[in-house]
Amino acid sequence: MHRTKVRIVEDALDANNTIARANREDFDRAGVSVVNLMSAPGAGKTLLLERALAGLADEGVIVGVLEGDVAGSFDADRLSVLHIPVTQLNTDKGFGGECHLDANMVRTALAALPLDELDLLIIENIGNLVCPAEFLVGADASIMVCSVTEGEDKPLKYPLMFRACELVVVNKIDLLPHLEYDVDRLEANIAQVNPGAISMRVSARTGEGVDEFRQWLTTVVERATATA
Amino acid sequence: MHRTKVRIVEDALDANNTIARANREDFDRAGVSVVNLMSAPGAGKTLLLERALAGLADEGVIVGVLEGDVAGSFDADRLSVLHIPVTQLNTDKGFGGECHLDANMVRTALAALPLDELDLLIIENIGNLVCPAEFLVGADASIMVCSVTEGEDKPLKYPLMFRACELVVVNKIDLLPHLEYDVDRLEANIAQVNPGAISMRVSARTGEGVDEFRQWLTTVVERATATA
Repeated sequence: MHRTKVRIVEDALDANNTIARANREDFDRAGVSVVNLMSAPGAGKTLLLERALAGLADEGVIVGVLEGDVAGSFDADRLSVLHIPVTQLNTDKGFGGECHLDANMVRTALAALPLDELDLLIIENIGNLVCPAEFLVGADASIMVCSVTEGEDKPLKYPLMFRACELVVVNKIDLLPHLEYDVDRLEANIAQVNPGAISMRVSARTGEGVDEFRQWLTTVVERATATA
Repeated sequence: MHRTKVRIVEDALDANNTIARANREDFDRAGVSVVNLMSAPGAGKTLLLERALAGLADEGVIVGVLEGDVAGSFDADRLSVLHIPVTQLNTDKGFGGECHLDANMVRTALAALPLDELDLLIIENIGNLVCPAEFLVGADASIMVCSVTEGEDKPLKYPLMFRACELVVVNKIDLLPHLEYDVDRLEANIAQVNPGAISMRVSARTGEGVDEFRQWLTTVVERATATA
């Protein structure tokens, strides 16, 4: 039984990669750069986006968001005040309550987004440190938010996620004075599983480091333009 | 393709339930009560266990832990100082890096635990608010830890998990003075998706509320004895 299961998983990932490539081609045709944003539940992805995306138009970057959740549209509602295109994708309707977004789910939602008008699409994945890292969706960059309330051991316990990401936003640093937490130790653990990853210390609540993150988002758009 | 996928998922859950019943029968034969402990990554399950399990022997309850992780044995190592039986179950070896424990994984680990000597077995599940709630493992009680750093909206975004649990331990309340967080709102959201759930406010770090949680664990053993 077990070998069959592994076979099914491999087939599913193959099919996923094929659809991810189709997404990638559509993004390229539309001239939109795509970031797959992942984290554990409650790490602060949405507040980070609320703060960082507000200033992106001033940088000349038109951004849209694809908001993934098992249920509800709480995050999409929060982002709608930014007056940017936001599309909600729920995995409990038609997708069996999946714990991650895959390429096909993203594909079904693309028609609802004005891709041709965007420079940057942020895909806010489901809060989960395991499966979202396994499913390519066709993004240019995979990044994650890691909150300092989660413990320094997370890169070692969820290595695939930290390996899949080129940028780790270390969030909630405003809480550091109230925690027994060593950011250097977290960053050493990140370097152990992914030596090439960039780490960026941020407080979405106070705004500390948010400018640097916004700047990083503009570089994703710039490098796509440079290679176009 | 999609209908086939749903069919495969249903078959997998059927097979899982069959194995969960077999686990349940083995637990009953051994006279051990079993708690399935779930949460998002970094919510504080292990520190809660470190604090709560230390005093359980004084209450006459012999406890063991089955420690689920994708990779590593950091939590098992932390618990080993309690001098209780702890067995590590990693899902990246032979289980494809699964994001949850299922009944079969638990079954493969049972032989390593002295079930006949235990009154209570805690299964510390993988940090994930989605899939662990879908897979029965044969436990008497499913419970979860929800940290106040995660936001009050989690019951509405991950309703299946909150519905699956009879007890929600609201952890890290020592951080409340430093957060904009309304525990009453969280508890109203829990009640909305699961009116029967008990909520318990705890700080595993300061020890506040831990006695109450330890007491709750003893009642799981007592109710099993009462119905035996």
